[in-house]
Formats: sequence, C-alpha cells, structure tokens
Amino acid sequence: MAKAYETIADTLRAEIRSGRPAPGARLASEDELSDRFGYSVPTVREGLRVLQSEGLIEKVHGRGSFVRAPRPRVRRTNARHQWEKDRARAPEPVRLETGATEHDTGLDLGDLRFSAVYREIEAPRDLAGAMGVEPGTPLVERSYRTRYERERVPVNLSTSYLVRAQVEGNPDLLDAAREPWPGGTWHQLATVGIEIDRVEERVMARPPTSEEAAELGLPPGTSVLVLHKTCYDTGNRVVETSRVVLPGDRTELLFTTPLERWRAE
Amino acid sequence: MAKAYETIADTLRAEIRSGRPAPGARLASEDELSDRFGYSVPTVREGLRVLQSEGLIEKVHGRGSFVRAPRPRVRRTNARHQWEKDRARAPEPVRLETGATEHDTGLDLGDLRFSAVYREIEAPRDLAGAMGVEPGTPLVERSYRTRYERERVPVNLSTSYLVRAQVEGNPDLLDAAREPWPGGTWHQLATVGIEIDRVEERVMARPPTSEEAAELGLPPGTSVLVLHKTCYDTGNRVVETSRVVLPGDRTELLFTTPLERWRAE
Repeated sequence: MAKAYETIADTLRAEIRSGRPAPGARLASEDELSDRFGYSVPTVREGLRVLQSEGLIEKVHGRGSFVRAPRPRVRRTNARHQWEKDRARAPEPVRLETGATEHDTGLDLGDLRFSAVYREIEAPRDLAGAMGVEPGTPLVERSYRTRYERERVPVNLSTSYLVRAQVEGNPDLLDAAREPWPGGTWHQLATVGIEIDRVEERVMARPPTSEEAAELGLPPGTSVLVLHKTCYDTGNRVVETSRVVLPGDRTELLFTTPLERWRAE
Repeated sequence: MAKAYETIADTLRAEIRSGRPAPGARLASEDELSDRFGYSVPTVREGLRVLQSEGLIEKVHGRGSFVRAPRPRVRRTNARHQWEKDRARAPEPVRLETGATEHDTGLDLGDLRFSAVYREIEAPRDLAGAMGVEPGTPLVERSYRTRYERERVPVNLSTSYLVRAQVEGNPDLLDAAREPWPGGTWHQLATVGIEIDRVEERVMARPPTSEEAAELGLPPGTSVLVLHKTCYDTGNRVVETSRVVLPGDRTELLFTTPLERWRAE
C-alpha cells in the first residue's frame, strides 16, 4: 500500500510529467497542498523531498518549490562491456561511428560533446592497491567529460587510470590529442596486446561534494552514485581502473546476471 | 592529485579508523582543524561532509562533530545469484545452514535476526507493469528485515513480490510462518516448478525519506541505494520483483561481468 507521502509524490510527479505545472512554474504552497491532499504539512514536505531527490523540483529558500526543466535520463548497463569488447575488433569505420556513452544514451555522436585530459601521476597508496602495483608506480590518469550539446554540465565525472608500463609500447596511448579514440579504451588496450577478461563494478551512494554538485549541476537534496570499475585482462592483471561519479537525479545503472541452467536430475 | 578537502577527510578517516579519536568523542572544532591543516573553514567543512556521508561522524547542531560507532560494512554481490540458484538444489541440511544475507555478511545465522511479513495485495499500476500482469492481479507482498543481533536496525529494507497464481500451487508459499525458508525464494519457486534464468538489477541513489532514515538508523547527510531486482524464469516470465533500500554509509554493491574470449583471427 502506498504511504501518504508516496501518494502525494506520485500525483505531483504525474502532473509535472504531463507538463502542468510546466518547468519554471511554482508549485502550490505546502499549506495549499496539505489542504488539497488532506495530509499534514510534514507529510507534504516528505512528498516534496522525494520529487526533489529525483531532480523534478527545486526548493528556493523563502519562495517555494519550482518545477525544474527535466534532464534526459541516462541508463548505463553492464551489457555495454561485451558491446565495447566486440567493438574493439570491429573495422575502423564501425569504431568511428559510436562510443559507449552514445550506446547508453541512444544519441548520435553529433548530439554529444566530449573532452579528455591526460596526466601522468605516481600511484598514491589507494590506487596502487586497487591496481596491484607498488605506490609510486607511473600511471596515466585520464579525465573524461561528456555532455549533451544543449546542456552545460557533463553526464558524469569519469577518471580512468592505466599503468604506464603496460601501455607505453604504443606512444599514441599517452597522447590526449588522439581522443576520442575510435573504439575507446578497449581498442587502445588491444593495440598493446591486452584483452579484457572481466569487469568488476563496485557501487556506492552518498551526497555530492560541493565541487561535484557544481560540476554536475546538482541541486541540494540529491545524491550521487559512485562507481569504481576494475578491468582484468586474460592474465588476471588489473589493466584499467576508473572512478565515475554519476548524478542520482538522472542515472540508473542496470546489471543483468545470467545463470547456468539446471540439468535434469 | 588529492584535493584539499580529500586530504583532510583522508587524514581524519585514518585517525578515526585507528581508534583515536574514539567512537563518541568530539572532533576538534572547525577552527582548530582549519589551523591544523592550513586550509579554510569551508574546505574543512567539505572534508567533514565526506566523513558524514560515510557514516563516520555525526554533526550535532551547536555542539560539533562526534565520532560514530562504526557499523560493519555489508557487501552484496551479483555472485550471490548463482550461489542461491545452486543452493536451491542442495539437500535440506545444507539449505538450513545459511541464507543469502549470511552469504553477504560472512556471519552465521546465529548472529542475525530475521523477520518476514506476508500480505496479499492487488497489483498497483507500477508493479503490474514491472511484473508483466494486469493492474489488480493478486500478488504476494513479502517484507523482510534482517539485522545484526547486536544492532537495533536492519541492514536493509526489502520488499518482494510474487504473482499469487504462479505460486499458490504450494500453499506453504503463502504462509509467513514457514520463514525463514531453507533455501529461500529460489527453493520456494523450485517447489512450484520455476527455475530462474537471469536477474536484472536496477540501481539508483537518493537521500533517504525520513521514515527510511528512522528505520535504518541513518544520520543526516547520508544517502541510500535503491535496488529494483527482477527475476525472469526460463520461460521469460517475471517470477519475482523486489525493491531493496540499502544504507549508503555501510553498503557496497559489487557486480562482476564476465566476457567472451576473443578467438584467434
């Protein structure tokens, strides 16, 4: 059975999605909503908090709650990994056509703006542990930002790490000017003989830091998903780790786990 | 390179983990920390917010920040699904030994307290959509709470749904008094001839509602992971959905995706 605040949130969400009230409009006041739904003001506030965490409304101190312009949702699936692996072996014209973010968003390359910054660092203790190398080992740190052309903020904050000694055999892999690389990291690694065997993804949730909120355009009352990805090669070495911060108001992760069939007994 | 607030958070986190300051103790004031680290008070606050989101400290209005008694972390993996599927075919003595939560926490059944409440409902629109049935179809709603014996709050809030018509062939499946069921849902479904083929898990992040915060013992400044799980049987029917709310200060989800090997070209 839906709880009272869920009923309020469900009703207002449906109204906002149908376009009335429209983006930019002020919602009815908490007192008015309390009268309308026949629930207490604290219950109304709880319902509004749900819509706030979904990025549908924004509270402006002393002025009330306003409908936000809806942001396209981004679904990121673990099916992308096999897709990326297959694509790494595709001919260059195919690899040029699309990247993993386009795969997730269903958009064309032309709708997205991409940037990459490379930097060489010495592995700090936590990254060294995650990558199975000694602290101080040279790493290539790569920061990626992808945004919808019509938005000002990226869809996530992504930082990837490679072990320099594993990839320096191909100097192009150290050069951000080669980005966006057709076929992405999976093809880059293939050029130095690395095949990825499996991907591990650890997922956590927390409020954004104020820097993350600013860079991702997150209003107060939202959360982020933090994803730590580790790619192992067929020799069981860690060949890439990445840390991705994804806005909770627009991101859904989807993981499918296939299972072995029972044999007849 | 670590940002200033991260350096502050990392240093204080290491101190708290080493036991000084101890749980219950008050942290140095923001001004004192600003002097100690040589960063501004807003930067110190940002560092403290990180520790707050991890559940390591709690801000008490007007009194400062206090170290919280650390809660054991819970890691939930998608490897649990194959493990649960295999266990459903194990002999009863094996099935009696352990459940999926024990599998995740590494604890014995004796360390955990378990409760289950069953209720029959008519599928509301959203659940009907998720389960591929008509709205109004009878469902069995099952609410599960598992907690560490020495804690007062459960490790998550879990609600599972079965389609009544799919399971009523075994009346025991409608009776909460049969819980905890040796071998869990996977064995329950096997008793009515259902084999699960794959599991889909959608993951989102948001702040807790005030009810969730109270039930999970979550302090302000934390988030929750929301997991929607869908189990498909070998005939591609949805046979179970569940909605699990997991506290962000102690939960880590781990998904492993194995990949097909490249063949020699």
